[in-house]
Amino acid sequence: MTVADVAREAGVAKATASRALGGYGAVSDEARDRVLAAAEALGYRPNELARSMNTGKSKTIGVVVGDIENGYFGLAMRGISDAAKRAGYDIILVNTSEDVEAEIDAVRLLLDKRVDGLIVAPASAYRTEHLREVHQSGHPLVLLDRRIESLPAVSVGVDIAPAARAATRALVAEGHRRIAFVSALGTDGERYSGLPLGVSSVTDRLVGILQGLEETGIPISPELIRFEAHGAEKTHAVIADLLALSEPPTAILLSDSLVALNVLLAFRELGIKVPRDVSVVAFDDVDWAAITDPPMTVVSQPIYDVGVTAAEELLRLMRGMAPDATTLRLPAALVERDSIGPVAVSAQ
Amino acid sequence: MTVADVAREAGVAKATASRALGGYGAVSDEARDRVLAAAEALGYRPNELARSMNTGKSKTIGVVVGDIENGYFGLAMRGISDAAKRAGYDIILVNTSEDVEAEIDAVRLLLDKRVDGLIVAPASAYRTEHLREVHQSGHPLVLLDRRIESLPAVSVGVDIAPAARAATRALVAEGHRRIAFVSALGTDGERYSGLPLGVSSVTDRLVGILQGLEETGIPISPELIRFEAHGAEKTHAVIADLLALSEPPTAILLSDSLVALNVLLAFRELGIKVPRDVSVVAFDDVDWAAITDPPMTVVSQPIYDVGVTAAEELLRLMRGMAPDATTLRLPAALVERDSIGPVAVSAQ
Repeated sequence: MTVADVAREAGVAKATASRALGGYGAVSDEARDRVLAAAEALGYRPNELARSMNTGKSKTIGVVVGDIENGYFGLAMRGISDAAKRAGYDIILVNTSEDVEAEIDAVRLLLDKRVDGLIVAPASAYRTEHLREVHQSGHPLVLLDRRIESLPAVSVGVDIAPAARAATRALVAEGHRRIAFVSALGTDGERYSGLPLGVSSVTDRLVGILQGLEETGIPISPELIRFEAHGAEKTHAVIADLLALSEPPTAILLSDSLVALNVLLAFRELGIKVPRDVSVVAFDDVDWAAITDPPMTVVSQPIYDVGVTAAEELLRLMRGMAPDATTLRLPAALVERDSIGPVAVSAQ
Repeated sequence: MTVADVAREAGVAKATASRALGGYGAVSDEARDRVLAAAEALGYRPNELARSMNTGKSKTIGVVVGDIENGYFGLAMRGISDAAKRAGYDIILVNTSEDVEAEIDAVRLLLDKRVDGLIVAPASAYRTEHLREVHQSGHPLVLLDRRIESLPAVSVGVDIAPAARAATRALVAEGHRRIAFVSALGTDGERYSGLPLGVSSVTDRLVGILQGLEETGIPISPELIRFEAHGAEKTHAVIADLLALSEPPTAILLSDSLVALNVLLAFRELGIKVPRDVSVVAFDDVDWAAITDPPMTVVSQPIYDVGVTAAEELLRLMRGMAPDATTLRLPAALVERDSIGPVAVSAQ
């Protein structure tokens, strides 16, 4: 059964039948109706469906990430792609801008496109019904970077709390006691009022930081824990606000590389020099962290390996095998460069 | 007609029928055969196909890019997504690592997934048969960033040659006469032997540079035009090789932000200080260009707008309208920061 048969039955040109069946190009409503009716009468099935009907597989993995402009997800994607390619799978990617509604759409879209499995970096730990449905329906699903406490799906990420604790202690060792944490997490304007937060990977950073403070006898100051540092402008406002406190921070931990970038841009605008005026440690050893002025001390995450592991776990599930574990966490490490200095005398 | 009807006909549980029809989860070959036979007998059609059959549209745009880790494509993607979303379209993205074979697969995959239109940044100006087929079959297609001389598809990019010429003249104005160009373009080890190159956006950069040299009476030195600077290691080798020339360059133009990153890392390893030892100008005003040591002089491209324009042109084609033009080129500009200095006395 070919497009030519359908065209003949519908009494249209083959090119018209192709366009109507393929859903592309210009074709009149009447011609489309005739072609689709003919296709149905003849039992014609386009390629992709025919292929899935034969094999039950489309050999495609769908990936849903929060922000492909964040180097973290770019590198994780490379790991996912490399592992998937080795197993003969294609990857299609949808970006959600960390918006749950967009994530719900993306999951629906990818299931419609008949992917064999899904890797999702969930935008929220609270609005998860769409992921729960995927998991319960038996679709292979792996959560990337973030886990959802109430959902027993496989999640692959980084064991970030110990490295966050080490970073905090490295700051304390240089005399810092006013240590801030700045994240892009959206909180609808809410201030920090305790754990957990809406994204587990941010919660885990803060758990480590609070541990480091507690162990060294430094009181926790909720006004130094800041969210909503998303984009250059909002980040500038967060930093200006922190520096205007009666006891401003002398050191800041930056939740990811995009936050780090925007904070460094804000410092430049505000005339703040690192580490002379403020010390910083950033999460993610993004490529450019070594060429900033000064080179940045960072928490390095094995992001590529997280991507590879997520894909490999998904492939196991797709083969009907049991996962290696429900929560897989790879280790992170503190990489010391030049962005931590002693507390300035004026601030002591 | 529902999955339950198919399950009844096949004599299996509804969950089994769902898995067999959806192509996911564990299901025996025998059960799958029974379910697929029942589905065929009853004329059952899964959702996505049913939807395209009704509307002729899947409301999805497929995007094929060379490297999502390159900030250029990340930002272009944001423009594409924003414009597509305004028109009610979803985006699915496939990354090719600038590999033509992967691009051929990606185009096939996206057509199989029944996207309504395609935006492609072609990896090669020479191997283009797959894109020619798409264009000739009437599928809406827009080329991103790069044009293909022999293919009259709509292409949206940047008019980069005038800015490349301005960057070159800015270097000449500081006394530089040994001016190199470093690109990640893959050439199978071939040295520069004239224009055009395999990717039009790289050709255009070099056209502007050669113009700038010619106008200022500086002879063109083929040994200063280098390719294959892909990844940190190969880039280090290219830079070490350039600096070991009997007349090494005193200034280098860097073809994109990933090349710039790797060159700055190589300089760090080699103890080269910008602009004291070598001046640089990079293409793309990537976010971190302002926080390097020193802040980098760059050619700024309106990348977000290129993405928006590409999506809008594709939407025009998908509505059966004529394109605004076959080759749309947005203007670029030189942004002067601190990475150009006078030629060192020792090099004069």
